[in-house]
Amino acid sequence: MTAQIDPFHAIAISRLAHRLAVEGRSVIHMEFGQPSTGAPAAAIAAAHHVLDTDGMGYWESPGLKARIAQHYRDAYEVEIDPEQLILTCGASPALVLALSCLFAPGARVALARPGYVAYRNTLKALHMQPVELHCGEAERFQVTARAIEALEPAPDGLILASPANPTGTIIDADEMRAIAAVCQRRGIRIISDEIYHGLSYIGPARSALQDTPDALVINSFSKYFSMAGWRLGWLVVPTDLIDAARARMGNMLLTPPSLAQHAGLVAFDCREELEAHVATYARNRDLLLAALPAMGLRRIAPPDGAFYIYADIGHLTDDSLEFCTRLLQETGVATAPGIDFDPIDGHRFMRFSFAVSTDRVEDAIARMEPWFARQPRLAVPA
Amino acid sequence: MTAQIDPFHAIAISRLAHRLAVEGRSVIHMEFGQPSTGAPAAAIAAAHHVLDTDGMGYWESPGLKARIAQHYRDAYEVEIDPEQLILTCGASPALVLALSCLFAPGARVALARPGYVAYRNTLKALHMQPVELHCGEAERFQVTARAIEALEPAPDGLILASPANPTGTIIDADEMRAIAAVCQRRGIRIISDEIYHGLSYIGPARSALQDTPDALVINSFSKYFSMAGWRLGWLVVPTDLIDAARARMGNMLLTPPSLAQHAGLVAFDCREELEAHVATYARNRDLLLAALPAMGLRRIAPPDGAFYIYADIGHLTDDSLEFCTRLLQETGVATAPGIDFDPIDGHRFMRFSFAVSTDRVEDAIARMEPWFARQPRLAVPA
Repeated sequence: MTAQIDPFHAIAISRLAHRLAVEGRSVIHMEFGQPSTGAPAAAIAAAHHVLDTDGMGYWESPGLKARIAQHYRDAYEVEIDPEQLILTCGASPALVLALSCLFAPGARVALARPGYVAYRNTLKALHMQPVELHCGEAERFQVTARAIEALEPAPDGLILASPANPTGTIIDADEMRAIAAVCQRRGIRIISDEIYHGLSYIGPARSALQDTPDALVINSFSKYFSMAGWRLGWLVVPTDLIDAARARMGNMLLTPPSLAQHAGLVAFDCREELEAHVATYARNRDLLLAALPAMGLRRIAPPDGAFYIYADIGHLTDDSLEFCTRLLQETGVATAPGIDFDPIDGHRFMRFSFAVSTDRVEDAIARMEPWFARQPRLAVPA
Repeated sequence: MTAQIDPFHAIAISRLAHRLAVEGRSVIHMEFGQPSTGAPAAAIAAAHHVLDTDGMGYWESPGLKARIAQHYRDAYEVEIDPEQLILTCGASPALVLALSCLFAPGARVALARPGYVAYRNTLKALHMQPVELHCGEAERFQVTARAIEALEPAPDGLILASPANPTGTIIDADEMRAIAAVCQRRGIRIISDEIYHGLSYIGPARSALQDTPDALVINSFSKYFSMAGWRLGWLVVPTDLIDAARARMGNMLLTPPSLAQHAGLVAFDCREELEAHVATYARNRDLLLAALPAMGLRRIAPPDGAFYIYADIGHLTDDSLEFCTRLLQETGVATAPGIDFDPIDGHRFMRFSFAVSTDRVEDAIARMEPWFARQPRLAVPA
């Protein structure tokens, strides 16, 4: 039987938001995790030059691979060979390659619930088995070494995400080391999605490669580098999987976009512009963390990094999709329902993405405050 | 067990070619199927404009989907709903989506041998079973209705490629209808890779959609539109598979590159420039078809379309990789060994890609003529 995959409800929210905008409504897009800022100016200038001078055939940039390897030295003091890097069309297919390199159908792969919907769905599409670890407030909504230790039988793999989507929580260094140790002892392969690295409000996140040299690490230019629509990401594989990963890339994807590789190389040297985006996100986060509790949203996952706030709305609804739809219809603020990230408890959560300009966040707060004040409380919270 | 995938030997040839070029050697790249011309001028102009005016987030172009649907009306008199179109990062991942929508691991999918290496390898990566149909000179190197009729048990699917890689052969209208009929009768789902449509020297190729409305059709901007490195393709799915295909796209790939979608829409209206490329390929083809027999390469697959010539070199070698490597080292002409396309008989074939400028083809012929004249004939042809 072909794989059954859940829909991504935020897409329905987004479609409704665009329909409302077409009807002349003012809409604030906080439903997707995508920067509104665009690529750094120097990266765009480089792209203009390449457009005028290069035929743009199938291509992999050796310079970009070398620059990314340098980044691992600079940011994590981790030494990788540029040959360990597979340049991909974004982080999503990097996960496909990683899973395909490591596992066969039927493999059991653990991951946090709540978590990014594509982890679960991509596993299902590849006929692998998601083993969801319930991660609640007590675990800071993150995978713990203890939870992995307790899994029987041991899963074949573990997907880590720190900072996480939808919560933004970061796994601290001690816990990362403990997770690495238990995975090594139990023979569990780690895939670490580090797409939100660089977006941290409590100090830098730790790469899985610092504790687990044979981890497979996913990253992309879509978040910190503000280049979502350029579709460029990468996968770090251990040396014994280089051939397997290259073979999958060459057959299942071929090459990543040429222009994005040229621009991405330049983007690495646009730190000032990119750090200004991070400062904007930090301001937005502060505004929301001040405003949301005043609206009654007091149970919020620790927003250590990324650009998300995952809030408990169990006192207001037991149907987060209906709630987010109504919020959009009545205020023009688009958000993502928790059921996208957690099929079991997500009915009482919602996610705000604050990767927009600060004035949009201020506007959203001004619209939401009276709206939330009007919402009746449930007699029995969900 | 994870899937074992064969290497693509043309990549090794290409790497050697680039190394020789770095050493100062003059190299002619006829190893890959990629136009050297670049995107149409108006498409590049559109890309410049988008770079300056658009933040380029995750995006799917409704306008491009509508334009592609129009193309099916214009070129094939086939009516499709734009919602049936999934825009992808090139044809390669479109095949991944198609296979994942239709089949589960273990499914048996028939395909021509010789054929494009990624069909076999992507099937293997998804733990499906390639059922290779030997297609020799008698079958014009193409799948026939008779061969599909004879397969026991009936396969679950069939991958068609017309024009084909590596041979360029086109399946004629009568045979396409006969294939459609036998597949319908036996319940075999058709995936048709139509990436070389528009590149035909014997009249237009027929789309599988003309005879099989529920075929899944793959196409891309990499060949006719000369936009290989932009990484944009599409998949047409029947209406009952739209949700399944969209779910896979959203989870396994997310979106195709934004800039490419803007440029691709414009490229559809650059027919004059694109037809000039086809005229170049036609000239190149004529030159090679005149020169190769004089070099002793008389057994050539009918080069109906695409930009390939697949030639029998069994009188000269039984090791096409060694032969192509030596040709490159001694003349600077890079070609692809038949073993990339046919694991059984490919040792005695080679593929020339003539998607280069005509003066490069003339130069290649001038280099190859004396080289081939020096090659000893095998006592017993391979």
